[in-house]
Amino acid sequence: MRIQTLTIVGVGLIGGSIALAAKRRDLAGFVIGTGKNQAELERALAIGAIDECSMDCAEAVGRADVAVFCMPVDQIADQVLAAAQACSAKTLLTDTGSTKSVIVKQVEAGLPDSISFVGSHPLAGSEKRGVAFADADLLAGRVTIVTRTPRTAPSALERTIQFWESLGSRTRVMDPEEHDRTLALTSHLPHLVASALAGILPRELQELTATGFRDTTRIAAGDPSLWSAVFRQNQPELLQSLQLFERRLDKFRAALTGDDSEALDALLKDGKEVRDALGS
Amino acid sequence: MRIQTLTIVGVGLIGGSIALAAKRRDLAGFVIGTGKNQAELERALAIGAIDECSMDCAEAVGRADVAVFCMPVDQIADQVLAAAQACSAKTLLTDTGSTKSVIVKQVEAGLPDSISFVGSHPLAGSEKRGVAFADADLLAGRVTIVTRTPRTAPSALERTIQFWESLGSRTRVMDPEEHDRTLALTSHLPHLVASALAGILPRELQELTATGFRDTTRIAAGDPSLWSAVFRQNQPELLQSLQLFERRLDKFRAALTGDDSEALDALLKDGKEVRDALGS
Repeated sequence: MRIQTLTIVGVGLIGGSIALAAKRRDLAGFVIGTGKNQAELERALAIGAIDECSMDCAEAVGRADVAVFCMPVDQIADQVLAAAQACSAKTLLTDTGSTKSVIVKQVEAGLPDSISFVGSHPLAGSEKRGVAFADADLLAGRVTIVTRTPRTAPSALERTIQFWESLGSRTRVMDPEEHDRTLALTSHLPHLVASALAGILPRELQELTATGFRDTTRIAAGDPSLWSAVFRQNQPELLQSLQLFERRLDKFRAALTGDDSEALDALLKDGKEVRDALGS
Repeated sequence: MRIQTLTIVGVGLIGGSIALAAKRRDLAGFVIGTGKNQAELERALAIGAIDECSMDCAEAVGRADVAVFCMPVDQIADQVLAAAQACSAKTLLTDTGSTKSVIVKQVEAGLPDSISFVGSHPLAGSEKRGVAFADADLLAGRVTIVTRTPRTAPSALERTIQFWESLGSRTRVMDPEEHDRTLALTSHLPHLVASALAGILPRELQELTATGFRDTTRIAAGDPSLWSAVFRQNQPELLQSLQLFERRLDKFRAALTGDDSEALDALLKDGKEVRDALGS
């Protein structure tokens, strides 16, 4: 795949990493960065992640062959629909949001038939923010979920898959609902749990934490407003996952209360088996 | 501080790291390794962590100025009491167990008055096991908790503090109950939570996890039988911490259910504030 013009809307950690990878892998002839944060755009230009920065989002998207929206989940649909006004049929629109059902539904409800939007979610990131932390290898070897709905044109789906694979990512296609059900368990619940664990630590015990506590709570350093928006957009699935988790805690409590060493061992073995399978 | 003979009972990750640090920092003239696992002892000898390996634990402890018991928490008290039979008043006995109340109580109930035992817990470790992962810097800059009871001789407490500080650790003195209350929250609950989170992940979703899930569940790879013993010895405090954590989950659920973005933001900000304060 080779793209003439790639537009990144929102050049932070993810958008900047996509831009850097597109240049490093010679996927795009020209990369435009656009968005609301001029300082970040200028930084992206300075480090060579983008070739041009523009404060006119619709115009910058209108010139693109592929435009990727990288911003908080509660802003994506509005931004896509606003920019789509300036698009011709040649432009493929996609995004990087951590939720999919709400975004895809809102976009599909408002998008002209001639314009293609395919929801995406690269499973890569960091608790860090900003183009200063962008990394051309952020997507390498990671999975990007690409969503398909009854309205998704097969050719647009295919181009979206090629786009992510050209950046070094593997891809998985699923519908937006399956994405959200999956991510509730693999990402949104872990974030909630890490945050809850960090949140109950009294200040005077901070210096008595070791690597275990730090690893387990690392992602709690993520931006609260970004995650609050993710949680709210994926509320029903996140509540389901939370219930599943609490049932597991109940089993631990029962095993502890009953001093049931067999049950405790079995629970801990289950967790170890899964964690060992994930690798380091 | 300078020790003539240091005996490590149980030369695995922690025991091996203490031995390596004692040699590197020239704290001990001679280091004896003893324990039940001959293969590990020979490995420790081969990598130069110990100068001699012995399968006769009591004899090896009897020759020591300082003996450190590094083994699963449910074995420490028995081993200390058995080895104490061969000790003179010169030998200071300490340990590295992740729980303290049960161990210290059992040891103090059975120990001759002439022999000093001071409970210790270096807040350092890994989900890895074995002397192959031992590291002379494992304790450097970490905190070691040293416990004091009404029976603890001030001179023995002082020697124990000097011992850990000579290995590069900082120290904090507290009673065994405060240790257990603290560790329930900073270590045992995070382990339970990480294990519960890993344990509910269906196999088919394993490849859809990213760094967030992996960080949050890393410690679930720890040895189930070691942790099961820790959980059981610290059962009342761990149940208390679990209840505190579940109350926090209740607050998240209420905020989610009510789509209360202010409450959700506030909860996430609390977690971020603590996690940011911990550093990387």
